[in-house]
Amino acid sequence: IAARIRDFPTTVFTEFSALAQKHQAVNLGQGFPDFDGPEEIREAAVRAVRGGVNQYAVSSGAVVLKEAVAEHALRFYGQKVDPATEVIVTNGATEALFDATLAFVNPGDEVIVFEPYYDSYVANVTMAGGVPRYVLLRPPDAQHTRWWYDSAELEAQFTSRTKFILLNTPHNPTGKVFDRAELEHIASLCIRHDVLAIADEVYEHITFEPARHLRLATIPGMAERTLTISSGGKSFSFTGWKVGWVIGSPALCGAVQKTHQFVTFAVAGPLQHAIAAALRLPDAYFVELARSYRTKRDLLVDALDAVGLRPIAPDGAYFVMARIGHLGFPDDFEFCRYLTRDIGVAAIPPTAFYAEHHRIHGSHLARFAFCKRDETLLSAREKLLARL
Amino acid sequence: IAARIRDFPTTVFTEFSALAQKHQAVNLGQGFPDFDGPEEIREAAVRAVRGGVNQYAVSSGAVVLKEAVAEHALRFYGQKVDPATEVIVTNGATEALFDATLAFVNPGDEVIVFEPYYDSYVANVTMAGGVPRYVLLRPPDAQHTRWWYDSAELEAQFTSRTKFILLNTPHNPTGKVFDRAELEHIASLCIRHDVLAIADEVYEHITFEPARHLRLATIPGMAERTLTISSGGKSFSFTGWKVGWVIGSPALCGAVQKTHQFVTFAVAGPLQHAIAAALRLPDAYFVELARSYRTKRDLLVDALDAVGLRPIAPDGAYFVMARIGHLGFPDDFEFCRYLTRDIGVAAIPPTAFYAEHHRIHGSHLARFAFCKRDETLLSAREKLLARL
Ligand SMILES: CSCCC(=O)C(=O)O
Ligand SMILES: CSCCC(=O)C(=O)O
Repeated sequence: IAARIRDFPTTVFTEFSALAQKHQAVNLGQGFPDFDGPEEIREAAVRAVRGGVNQYAVSSGAVVLKEAVAEHALRFYGQKVDPATEVIVTNGATEALFDATLAFVNPGDEVIVFEPYYDSYVANVTMAGGVPRYVLLRPPDAQHTRWWYDSAELEAQFTSRTKFILLNTPHNPTGKVFDRAELEHIASLCIRHDVLAIADEVYEHITFEPARHLRLATIPGMAERTLTISSGGKSFSFTGWKVGWVIGSPALCGAVQKTHQFVTFAVAGPLQHAIAAALRLPDAYFVELARSYRTKRDLLVDALDAVGLRPIAPDGAYFVMARIGHLGFPDDFEFCRYLTRDIGVAAIPPTAFYAEHHRIHGSHLARFAFCKRDETLLSAREKLLARL
Repeated sequence: IAARIRDFPTTVFTEFSALAQKHQAVNLGQGFPDFDGPEEIREAAVRAVRGGVNQYAVSSGAVVLKEAVAEHALRFYGQKVDPATEVIVTNGATEALFDATLAFVNPGDEVIVFEPYYDSYVANVTMAGGVPRYVLLRPPDAQHTRWWYDSAELEAQFTSRTKFILLNTPHNPTGKVFDRAELEHIASLCIRHDVLAIADEVYEHITFEPARHLRLATIPGMAERTLTISSGGKSFSFTGWKVGWVIGSPALCGAVQKTHQFVTFAVAGPLQHAIAAALRLPDAYFVELARSYRTKRDLLVDALDAVGLRPIAPDGAYFVMARIGHLGFPDDFEFCRYLTRDIGVAAIPPTAFYAEHHRIHGSHLARFAFCKRDETLLSAREKLLARL
């Protein structure tokens, strides 16, 4: 077994989804909806399967999807994208993140990542032989109404070895939506140090007013140095279809494609056609998605509050971080295992998203997903009220 | 752009599929059927989409597919496989090959590969920092009725740095089906040198009697040291669904899963369900698949022969290598571009499957695919007869 993967644990999602199933817990752990997206998109997949687009798609992506990705970028962000040279379709955002990391990181190169981070980010940097440099996202406090970071700490992470910064906005697991001032600060650092940015924007359509998603690539000076990653899973509630993409300049996308062509070669064709149809849904669909998730967020935040967990209401994405430090558990893993096993509600321990030596910053927190039917959230609420 | 991918060309499939489309050529290039697999499997996919298995599959694979892979291995090869610990589902065999290489190859490790090889094999070794060691497959000659290799040459490639041997049987592009004596020879070398084997057996159901596919993992002593890779694409004529898998011991599969969980995380769920149904098709399906491809092989071999190309009839897979050296073209790329552009029939230049310094062994050959409707093969025959 190769050194680059020797120390990898099983992902926290695999562990806690199995545990949730074993104990028949209400699963607020792994972030997947317990409902499907629009019927008409499911039927678009059926039509594609029956219509015979069942042989290899073009390696870089089906033309119809690349065009839909470009149209969507123009419609929502005024971003001009050439579908032929500036979009690569991948097996979910996960493959996009992996391909981009392998495509740009030489051994010893540094990658700046906000912590907590989606677990694959640092695993990818490790597999590429790179070195992660962390910037801590800090919870709201007396001086800050939202998750924040120390800008001097961010500046200090840029060195002559920095290859790129990995930004996730809206952010999993904290729900932070980076605002314009923050993005402009990040952009100015990238430009000053001639560094690339990889922006994981998979929760782009899940934000709660007054927070609004801004695309890093549209900040002046960033178009040429940003790879934007997104996918159909979160925006259309078909996480199992695994259709993601990268948007970036022809040069950056060319490098991603060189990797992608050998990592997976291509992505399931009929599902690409269905996600193309989804990206063309009318604005009303996207408005309703955010509205519906706002209701779910409020429901979950109230429930957690009612049982004495201390939720931090998120501005975007579909997770709530709750403070659990006052409950006296040794750490977040112990708490989440207890919650899943004995209370019957599964949550994710956030230290899975912190570096080993930074776990102290996450061990007093637990992450709950609200991408669930209202009755699922209500049943979690009942179990928490009755048993915790 | 990282050094590990800097010198990668665009895959030959991308180049020649685009060229075929541009010139409206009959496409005998990239190996995908121009027909779909069984209607009932398409409908199994439709049922899965409508039935709501549209959220993340288990990372290592949907239980129903892992069980079907295990049953299939027992039915066809008497191979006992534990579906829970000895199967990992990947985004096609391509991801399986990539994950396995990244999971086992440390920088400087050597990998033995028969040449010509499917192009991703050596790209994968390069991305992992490994060193490929080649064994030449030689065309039939006065002494040999089939493609063969020099056993001393194979033995000489095993060193103290060898991590694994990559075997592809039935073999793309030559159509060679390794026989029992060859597999036992390979097995004895793997055992003697304590080396792993990765067996890419995606064409397992496409062989022409008297040739018969043997699974390397079932050769005595090999079960514990072999990762068998296959997929649904070739056996069921749905190459665009990208459902592949790895079979191996819990220890070997565990290492592949550590990589897979961060490379793609999971594979399209509804298509996993459909391929599970396909693996359970009755024996008659598999008999008919081989019979139908035999007819297509004979049709293409006769056509190539009739126009003065010199086909080497394959024992398996769905490609024919034809000798073109006597036609006076500078090399196989020039010939295949001419054939696509001016004759209207696309073929693949096999030097894409040889190391740079070994191209002389492939430049007098061209590869034609016969995974096409009979009318497509007949139309290629007509164009060749009329124009070549
Ligand atoms: C790829 S499984 C993880 C789903 C997710 O984004 C999360 O739960 O954080
Ligand atoms: C993944 S595209 C290549 C298809 C194929 O196996 C071939 O043409 O050799």
